[in-house]
Amino acid sequence: MSDVLTRLAQVLEERKQAAPDSSYVASLHAKGLNKILEKVGEECTETLLAAKDAERSGNTSELVYETADLWFHTLVMLSRLGLGPDEVLDELARRFDLSGLEEKAARNK
Amino acid sequence: MSDVLTRLAQVLEERKQAAPDSSYVASLHAKGLNKILEKVGEECTETLLAAKDAERSGNTSELVYETADLWFHTLVMLSRLGLGPDEVLDELARRFDLSGLEEKAARNK
Amino acid sequence: MSDVLTRLAQVLEERKQAAPDSSYVASLHAKGLNKILEKVGEECTETLLAAKDAERSGNTSELVYETADLWFHTLVMLSRLGLGPDEVLDELARRFDLSGLEEKAARNK
Amino acid sequence: MSDVLTRLAQVLEERKQAAPDSSYVASLHAKGLNKILEKVGEECTETLLAAKDAERSGNTSELVYETADLWFHTLVMLSRLGLGPDEVLDELARRFDLSGLEEKAARNK
Repeated sequence: MSDVLTRLAQVLEERKQAAPDSSYVASLHAKGLNKILEKVGEECTETLLAAKDAERSGNTSELVYETADLWFHTLVMLSRLGLGPDEVLDELARRFDLSGLEEKAARNK
Repeated sequence: MSDVLTRLAQVLEERKQAAPDSSYVASLHAKGLNKILEKVGEECTETLLAAKDAERSGNTSELVYETADLWFHTLVMLSRLGLGPDEVLDELARRFDLSGLEEKAARNK
Repeated sequence: MSDVLTRLAQVLEERKQAAPDSSYVASLHAKGLNKILEKVGEECTETLLAAKDAERSGNTSELVYETADLWFHTLVMLSRLGLGPDEVLDELARRFDLSGLEEKAARNK
Repeated sequence: MSDVLTRLAQVLEERKQAAPDSSYVASLHAKGLNKILEKVGEECTETLLAAKDAERSGNTSELVYETADLWFHTLVMLSRLGLGPDEVLDELARRFDLSGLEEKAARNK
């Protein structure tokens, strides 16, 4: 499961280069950064509404679906600007000292 | 790098149970779901503005930082509602056939 | 110009009662509150992007258009929940002491 | 009630010119457009959450408060970019034929 973002980023890079009518991702790139950011904003709103509904109903399937949409469109945005998930994961690892370096160092003792 | 989200989710689960004044995450949970969702919305806006600025300036460090904030707060939201990154990654893998099952099956031939 | 919001609110009330396929507003009400809130979120994102572009280009026509869309959909939201622009304008007047009471009092002297 | 936006816009213009530490509006202008847009985005999220809560509880006071915050910060944004509420109200009047010209014409008959 852990390398889904990396694999997805590879797919997004391929589709970024493709003809505009060949895929949804290619069509987003053809429309430009604003269109991609509008989608990020839309999916964020839908995620918030799904979270409010999930809290009330206990049903979380819509929330999972909308959060996947949000992460997906942030990956398209990163790809648009020459970035990938690794830069973001590096930043998160740095903040929370999740690099695994300590763990590896401990094992080497 | 690939299991940063899983490790971070573990940290978030621990902090969810902690005293409200012991960490930022604990303080968010003490304030409730609306506060967590407000932060998701805030970080989304900051990500969009950083993307606009990155396109213009070519400097992407702020965008990486804000996207990390956005993903971080979506993980707190998921944790709040009893979910983790695996449910979202499963959904993305399912959509894009990134499960690796085909690849593994091919290797077994 | 000053009573545009009041007149628009009257139009929105009429369309709220109309058949779903008779107008855009009626179709939003038929889809429910989440759909109306999704539109508010979408138009907010488009307003932010238009503001960034206006700052850069000096062309503000898109920004005016998107802000009108945002205000329009907040009026549909208010109408959905039994409110109108007057409640919001009252709140703003109260905060900024814009009620005109002082002015009227002065005239009475 | 109808000219609250116009009066408020006058207040905002005055405060735009003031020393950064003299008022909240002046401090927003000192921080720049991104800070103003972040506030618009924040207040939009808080409005959406308040609308969800109002639908459930029937209590609309928080929604009125947050919508006032949202409109207020869009007025600061417009002021930042050399615009005021009249441009937005003109656009809404144009779309919905709310200009009152027909009504006036009818009265003149």
